[in-house]
Amino acid sequence: MNFNEELRDRVRTAEEMVIKYGVSAEEGYQKTVLSAMNYSLLSGGKRLRPVMMREACTLFGGEHPCLGAFMAALEMIHTYSLVHDDLPAMDNDEYRRGKKTTHIVYGEDMAILTGDALLNKAYETVAHSLDLCADDPELTKRALTALKILTHKSGIYGMVGGQVYDVEAEDNNITLSEDSILFIFRLKTGALIQAALTIGAVLGGATQEEVDVMELVGEAVGIAFQIKDDILDVTGNPKILGKPVGSDEKNHKTTYVTIKGLKVASEDVNSYSNRAVELLGTLDKKNEFLEELIKFLINRDR
Amino acid sequence: MNFNEELRDRVRTAEEMVIKYGVSAEEGYQKTVLSAMNYSLLSGGKRLRPVMMREACTLFGGEHPCLGAFMAALEMIHTYSLVHDDLPAMDNDEYRRGKKTTHIVYGEDMAILTGDALLNKAYETVAHSLDLCADDPELTKRALTALKILTHKSGIYGMVGGQVYDVEAEDNNITLSEDSILFIFRLKTGALIQAALTIGAVLGGATQEEVDVMELVGEAVGIAFQIKDDILDVTGNPKILGKPVGSDEKNHKTTYVTIKGLKVASEDVNSYSNRAVELLGTLDKKNEFLEELIKFLINRDR
Repeated sequence: MNFNEELRDRVRTAEEMVIKYGVSAEEGYQKTVLSAMNYSLLSGGKRLRPVMMREACTLFGGEHPCLGAFMAALEMIHTYSLVHDDLPAMDNDEYRRGKKTTHIVYGEDMAILTGDALLNKAYETVAHSLDLCADDPELTKRALTALKILTHKSGIYGMVGGQVYDVEAEDNNITLSEDSILFIFRLKTGALIQAALTIGAVLGGATQEEVDVMELVGEAVGIAFQIKDDILDVTGNPKILGKPVGSDEKNHKTTYVTIKGLKVASEDVNSYSNRAVELLGTLDKKNEFLEELIKFLINRDR
Repeated sequence: MNFNEELRDRVRTAEEMVIKYGVSAEEGYQKTVLSAMNYSLLSGGKRLRPVMMREACTLFGGEHPCLGAFMAALEMIHTYSLVHDDLPAMDNDEYRRGKKTTHIVYGEDMAILTGDALLNKAYETVAHSLDLCADDPELTKRALTALKILTHKSGIYGMVGGQVYDVEAEDNNITLSEDSILFIFRLKTGALIQAALTIGAVLGGATQEEVDVMELVGEAVGIAFQIKDDILDVTGNPKILGKPVGSDEKNHKTTYVTIKGLKVASEDVNSYSNRAVELLGTLDKKNEFLEELIKFLINRDR
């Protein structure tokens, strides 16, 4: 199998987990929110985070009965953050991945509650999956460590923390420094990628030292990914991206590209990407697909 | 000690738990959201849910090292729901408990993220507290059962589910039937009260049968509490309530009072309240303060 076939295969598995642990019946008094949860959760996301989580688990030779639940939960958390991020009071985006955003289809109030419901369901999914390893103290310990990571990386010292400063800088026309923009990248984007890689590692039985390496890999990938995002907003093809380009410039937004220029930004993507691959190389275990995936993410055109 | 003194004492303990597990330093790039979390979390809530949780735990003779974390987490979830509920796209309220609402002080985008951060922190708090009982399989089992309850009662088949139909009925001018209004009361208000009583019971070592009784008690209390809320919106004193009255009528909102009239609504408060106390009476264990608290909640003037 070549990389693209392997990737399709892995994405399919991730998709299956999202569906398995997601919302099934859209019925009862809650049917609208259930429908809105499905709309946002099943709208063609790339499933990169759950794919990375599974590969990190495989890297350490492990399987874990809660892996699927954690994969789905991470995707729910990523999805809720997009639903809230798109709201009129936030980025006010009408399209994502070429489809109308949740608040455009279901209304602003329902979109707020849909985000809340997805975040809560992420933890509900994990909490209920713990029954699957209740008889095995070692697997339970791993799952509880993974839960701690998931809650931490999604919160104020993780994704939400990055969101907050991003929003605040825009609200107050604060010109971002390189330090503050890297802070935002590290948290807003990096934290959930770190969650993917470290949770996968923990569930797979990695040592603390190995988990620490995966956390650094995740940081480098997150930063490279987000610099690439800023570059694509300048040089990307809107048809391939599924969203308009030039929105950062239109919103007078300070980006990595405005601070460092396109050329240096592109070089930095490469050096963060190389750093991630080098870090992976320091481990005894190998997962070629994961290396390829990291390179692919960073050289993507959407 | 009389009831009021005992209540003050219990509320103080709950307040201490909220502070202990809440946000401490308002610093770093995230300082605004940390400040907004504190603003909403420490704005004079009655702390009824954590007080009830602790009393339910006491009723079953138990202590649990994670009790304080669960008390704080439940209050965080209650608080996040209020922050989001007050948003312009939802109830659009400018005051709560006599203070400006979070979005008025911090802006709408920050209020959305503050709610998200509080919900996430609730689970982060519980997840990290599990270390406190890691060496004791029985206490871990209780805590994980409690976590399942917390996630379930806060989600689409709990609080959020009630919120959703409440919002939807208002958006679409659906006239609520008695069945649908009771559905909303049961979920929007009842679910977190059920969470308080059942989590306390589980942590305290109650049997499944006892937990089931506490769940029914919570349902009756939740319904009585919310009918009383509708009554106070007609007959209450705005100075004591800390918010304007008559808002339901102004918004042409169908309430329990508009469906059944003030007299029957008041009678129903009493019968749900009596049902709750009767159910408590079927248990072998007794907690007089909890009984008094239930009566107090339902006879409150704010």
